[in-house]
Amino acid sequence: MMHFTLAQLAEILDAELIGNADFPVNGLATLGTAQPYQVSFLANMKYASQLDTCQAGAVILHPDQAAKFGGNKLLMANPYLGYAKLSALFAPRTSFAGVHPTAVVAQSAQLAADVVLGPGVVIGEHVRLDEGVQIGPNCSVGDHSVIGAHSRLAANVTLYHGVTMGQRNLVHSGAVLGSDGFGFAKDGADWIKIHQLGGVTIGDDVEIGAGTTIDRGALDDTVIGNGVKLDNQVQIAHNVVLGDYTAIAGCTAIAGSTTLGKHCTIAGACGITGHLQIADGVHVTAMSLVTHSIKQAGAYSSGTSLDDNNKWRRNAARFKQLDQMAKRVKQLEQQLQQTN
Amino acid sequence: MMHFTLAQLAEILDAELIGNADFPVNGLATLGTAQPYQVSFLANMKYASQLDTCQAGAVILHPDQAAKFGGNKLLMANPYLGYAKLSALFAPRTSFAGVHPTAVVAQSAQLAADVVLGPGVVIGEHVRLDEGVQIGPNCSVGDHSVIGAHSRLAANVTLYHGVTMGQRNLVHSGAVLGSDGFGFAKDGADWIKIHQLGGVTIGDDVEIGAGTTIDRGALDDTVIGNGVKLDNQVQIAHNVVLGDYTAIAGCTAIAGSTTLGKHCTIAGACGITGHLQIADGVHVTAMSLVTHSIKQAGAYSSGTSLDDNNKWRRNAARFKQLDQMAKRVKQLEQQLQQTN
Amino acid sequence: MMHFTLAQLAEILDAELIGNADFPVNGLATLGTAQPYQVSFLANMKYASQLDTCQAGAVILHPDQAAKFGGNKLLMANPYLGYAKLSALFAPRTSFAGVHPTAVVAQSAQLAADVVLGPGVVIGEHVRLDEGVQIGPNCSVGDHSVIGAHSRLAANVTLYHGVTMGQRNLVHSGAVLGSDGFGFAKDGADWIKIHQLGGVTIGDDVEIGAGTTIDRGALDDTVIGNGVKLDNQVQIAHNVVLGDYTAIAGCTAIAGSTTLGKHCTIAGACGITGHLQIADGVHVTAMSLVTHSIKQAGAYSSGTSLDDNNKWRRNAARFKQLDQMAKRVKQLEQQLQQTN
Repeated sequence: MMHFTLAQLAEILDAELIGNADFPVNGLATLGTAQPYQVSFLANMKYASQLDTCQAGAVILHPDQAAKFGGNKLLMANPYLGYAKLSALFAPRTSFAGVHPTAVVAQSAQLAADVVLGPGVVIGEHVRLDEGVQIGPNCSVGDHSVIGAHSRLAANVTLYHGVTMGQRNLVHSGAVLGSDGFGFAKDGADWIKIHQLGGVTIGDDVEIGAGTTIDRGALDDTVIGNGVKLDNQVQIAHNVVLGDYTAIAGCTAIAGSTTLGKHCTIAGACGITGHLQIADGVHVTAMSLVTHSIKQAGAYSSGTSLDDNNKWRRNAARFKQLDQMAKRVKQLEQQLQQTN
Repeated sequence: MMHFTLAQLAEILDAELIGNADFPVNGLATLGTAQPYQVSFLANMKYASQLDTCQAGAVILHPDQAAKFGGNKLLMANPYLGYAKLSALFAPRTSFAGVHPTAVVAQSAQLAADVVLGPGVVIGEHVRLDEGVQIGPNCSVGDHSVIGAHSRLAANVTLYHGVTMGQRNLVHSGAVLGSDGFGFAKDGADWIKIHQLGGVTIGDDVEIGAGTTIDRGALDDTVIGNGVKLDNQVQIAHNVVLGDYTAIAGCTAIAGSTTLGKHCTIAGACGITGHLQIADGVHVTAMSLVTHSIKQAGAYSSGTSLDDNNKWRRNAARFKQLDQMAKRVKQLEQQLQQTN
Repeated sequence: MMHFTLAQLAEILDAELIGNADFPVNGLATLGTAQPYQVSFLANMKYASQLDTCQAGAVILHPDQAAKFGGNKLLMANPYLGYAKLSALFAPRTSFAGVHPTAVVAQSAQLAADVVLGPGVVIGEHVRLDEGVQIGPNCSVGDHSVIGAHSRLAANVTLYHGVTMGQRNLVHSGAVLGSDGFGFAKDGADWIKIHQLGGVTIGDDVEIGAGTTIDRGALDDTVIGNGVKLDNQVQIAHNVVLGDYTAIAGCTAIAGSTTLGKHCTIAGACGITGHLQIADGVHVTAMSLVTHSIKQAGAYSSGTSLDDNNKWRRNAARFKQLDQMAKRVKQLEQQLQQTN
């Protein structure tokens, strides 16, 4: 287990240390559970009262809150960011090193000297894996794919052929990149497959969640921008373009050829239909359906709110009469006007 | 194929046998398709008329229905439970035994003597696999994970490091346990990853469906109680806590740090947002969105009912005027009061 | 890279060629990006103006549009179908051949002479793989499963035991076929597993998307008809029956024992509850919930339309008063009638 002194942490965080510079810690914990060998943080003021009894060896605090904790403290403007930065120090490292003898690597593949391939990994023809790439057990990387420096695949990830990703990416287990887009032409009753000849292009610093699927493009590539974060079980259809730093929560599906701008945040379980243009800075709330392009930044929603099932049944039945009800209201207004 | 006499089945079910105790059967089928060598059951009264022509070698019946079938019968209060219990007898067993020579097991892993590992399985450092554990082809189990006695993983399951599960669990193919929770801190335009340092703790008698994902906790563990049943493609975010015997149908997503009580039943394709508390015994109907905590047991719903697309378009357009319509109704009431 | 002359393409497409019969092309591209060595097509009239500057070596056009392009052209009634047919010519082939030495094949399995098994593939007892079957890296095929001629599994596909599929199927990575249906009987507080003894039967010419899950039947089989197309992350529960040529877009979930007719098109992120009968030719729009059987072909919808979050909040609050509002409108009508 890694140990750090508070002086080291203050330097990493560019924080002001008040307390014992040589104090050693080896982990992170919440205010309520932290032990003396752990660091904690106050990011949400509703937990401030926990500082009174907090056992942490040090706490990351906003300078305004410094007086509230008597022990060692690391003061910085954004304690939540401090927590994020320290979390990297205490994350466990993979126990695999080098290329496992059970990995199957095509002759034409180009691997940097320090690439790590777990057991059962399969690397196709003409694949390029840059320095520091780590690939977990039983992953498959298709022909002509490229994985940039220091990118990592967890176990059981699938890349089809022609998937190109930049540096420092992290792809979680069960994710599938480069599967065929869902494209068929009607020929009478029959569906004729449109073979998907484009690829997938992924930028730098992208994280892709477990079970997330990103289809290859029909002719041009599906494109994932820099700094994009996709949660688990997200579905990205062919020729979608995701702008830089856009983040999408779990189980959201985006249909083909839709473009999202930069810095969008799409909540979980949303649907976005195909061929739309979504502006930069759009936020969509959970389980909303987007069926038209959005030109302005802002927050958008659809659906109805949760209710007791009995009440909901009555209201949902009335929803089906809503157009009729609107006409009746209009008629009442006209009648009343005539009456008066 | 396994054969049982009706006397054996009566004993297993604690049922009253009326008929030939030595009659042999080797399978289960519905009333409409059962052959003389199969057992059937009547659990739903709408199928009662099928008893007249049923060919089954025996039928499990509630005592009140006994007179309706002329053949061999097994009488018990809950025939559906009888069917469930017999289904275990006729389920096929895996054809793998022992540790396959292509499995890769870390030196520090502790395996009980009778553990079954299929081809291509990868077991990390310090993993513990208890007696009777069976792991299907090409699964990966990360460092320091623990799988309790008689738990089974189907093919292509992924456990990250630090996933602990109890006894008699069943995890289906494509499931991913212990992937990183979706956590980032904003640093200007950039997302800084919050490394997920917690694990996943799973109780006993849990079933986890195909393609279901359960993220590891940020600091503390994500927790799945005893007897929990998760269908396919369920998404459980970091630090969710699921109470004992709660069952969740396919494609439902639960966001981070939400706690569900015991004996909840969540239908398919629901969304439950983060940091909520859901009481014991809550039922949520299909495709509902839960955005606030629920303090009382009961059934809850959101959404609207299916309608002809043309009618729906008109009503959905009116939904966007609903607040305005409510104000117009209020105004009508006031005007009418003044008129009278 | 494969080259074709325009004469060859005209023959494949049964199209009329106007231009240089010997002109060689080696790929497909959109009107806006096509190079002289590529073919393009005009299927959507909104792109017709791009013909003026299009650099393609040939364009597939409806005869009515022939005059709009000066270069080589292939004339046919359905240019989109022409594009689909040509796409097959330019799709890359897998680089694996034969049975990879790391594949693990049970002694009792029957493999046609030309079957291709990638590295790490696991084939169970009594499996039958017909001529031309190709199975990608790290797939697992359970005991007694059957894969018909020229069917292909991409990498990391899982078939449980007793999954039977016909000819020319394509199954994408991460798909799971034959996992247990979600069935339990209540025994007091406890859930007793109903072991799923049915299988999965899949017709010919079926495509199954990445991460899609199809559960095995409880007693009878789950059935997927001929020509069915399933997009990514679709969930098909036990004993669902999908009629021929039905197509289902990404992330849609169908609950147990529901039957869909032929030629249905279900958009993405829909939910269809259990034990329903859906007629032939039904179309359901995105993210709709189907909770009752549908007897007539047509388009169906549920949900509400996207709106600005602030407006949506007010309207969603009014939805909860809708039944009350309907009663108030009724009362107003009665009062006004009395007044007049």
